[in-house]
Amino acid sequence: MKYSIPLAMILLAAVNAHGAIHTEWVQYRHGETLLEGYLAYDDAVKGPRPGVLVVHEWMGLEDYAMKRAEQLAGMGYVAFALDMYGKGVRAKTPEEAAKLSGIYKGDRPLMRARAQAGLDELRKQPLVDPSRIAAIGYCFGGTTVLELARSGAPVAGVVSFHGGLGTPEPADAKNIKGKVLVLHGADDPHVPSAEVAAFQDEMRKAAVDWQMIYYGGAVHSFTNPGSGTDASTGVAYNEKADKRSWEAMKAFFKELF
Amino acid sequence: MKYSIPLAMILLAAVNAHGAIHTEWVQYRHGETLLEGYLAYDDAVKGPRPGVLVVHEWMGLEDYAMKRAEQLAGMGYVAFALDMYGKGVRAKTPEEAAKLSGIYKGDRPLMRARAQAGLDELRKQPLVDPSRIAAIGYCFGGTTVLELARSGAPVAGVVSFHGGLGTPEPADAKNIKGKVLVLHGADDPHVPSAEVAAFQDEMRKAAVDWQMIYYGGAVHSFTNPGSGTDASTGVAYNEKADKRSWEAMKAFFKELF
Repeated sequence: MKYSIPLAMILLAAVNAHGAIHTEWVQYRHGETLLEGYLAYDDAVKGPRPGVLVVHEWMGLEDYAMKRAEQLAGMGYVAFALDMYGKGVRAKTPEEAAKLSGIYKGDRPLMRARAQAGLDELRKQPLVDPSRIAAIGYCFGGTTVLELARSGAPVAGVVSFHGGLGTPEPADAKNIKGKVLVLHGADDPHVPSAEVAAFQDEMRKAAVDWQMIYYGGAVHSFTNPGSGTDASTGVAYNEKADKRSWEAMKAFFKELF
Repeated sequence: MKYSIPLAMILLAAVNAHGAIHTEWVQYRHGETLLEGYLAYDDAVKGPRPGVLVVHEWMGLEDYAMKRAEQLAGMGYVAFALDMYGKGVRAKTPEEAAKLSGIYKGDRPLMRARAQAGLDELRKQPLVDPSRIAAIGYCFGGTTVLELARSGAPVAGVVSFHGGLGTPEPADAKNIKGKVLVLHGADDPHVPSAEVAAFQDEMRKAAVDWQMIYYGGAVHSFTNPGSGTDASTGVAYNEKADKRSWEAMKAFFKELF
């Protein structure tokens, strides 16, 4: 996957502003399944700090989610890009990605438990204050962090970037403990308006603390520079919406932590 | 109209952080109609600066919009709370407000021209950089700033706080020169979902740079401490949504100016 210059520059700026970003692969397990996530934090920051869980897109844990974890580390958080699929398990084509992600989309208890395993791994990091944890996710990862919240997981807040919003168990929204922020491409063909309406109704009924931002002109995957720029395909990078949504996440974190 | 402590405290903080806020009443005309707006700026700030037009709620220009102008002045802008109705013309009851605001809602060319008169007044203030002007509005004022944008007025951006979104001339969105931010109570019974959908479609068709934030649990008038706190009436103050929407406006201004 290729990255355009802006993301690299943002990352570089974050690294320069702080100390060196320490990164490492962390193996952990969910039942019998071996998983491998990517941990990132700033060596120069001392003491316990908030943790941010990052959930990858449907291809599996790749550069994109790892770079986001590094950006978050540069902002002073302990970031952990979890692994939903298993060590070394990655989709090579969209067809494979649909199949892999479909396993979890079709089995929400598994999706929740697998995400919880990543959350547990983050919570036990010595530099993390386990009472201050947020989870963010992209596309499939956005769906996942919402599901994690519905499971009643101890997260202060979750942020979905262009994630699917549907769930087979909308009544579980009553379990949500933290705040919810949904960052949505207003022209995203992969999140139909009926799904958006059902999600809002779900949040409303459960009296969740929720917010949702629509970015005009943005389609699916608008934060990922690897998505190309042809919005007519329904999947495209949108620099403006990328920056705005990242700022919105920062403001949300400021309120949480 | 009464104000709760939080708004007064915010204002006080703004005043303390800067110099004294200069305020004055400014008489101006739209055709034969005498209008009187409220100008506010920070004496300590030197040189031309961005201007922010503030459009009042349906009762007319009262304390609420004036306090917002003062807050904006404390942030370094020249703020002008315009007058849509005419010098001294204020509604005393909701019935009168419905009647007064109805004149402008039912005559969009008049609404646009009346708002433009206020914009012209702000643009000619010696401390204002006329190339850097935004307009914000509350309820009726939110409707008005969107209409002002549709007229092709030279504003870098407009922000609607719990405003009505409908227009009889959606095709005029093609004239919009600046960016649009809509801050919306997700449970606002005064802005029906069909109106929201039509607005989004209007923005989409004209390829406007637009964003819209839904605040869960917020109803109409969520930024005004004078609205009470009983959301079941459909009109209520919501401190969380008030603060979040003000922060969203600040981030939007940061991008504009």
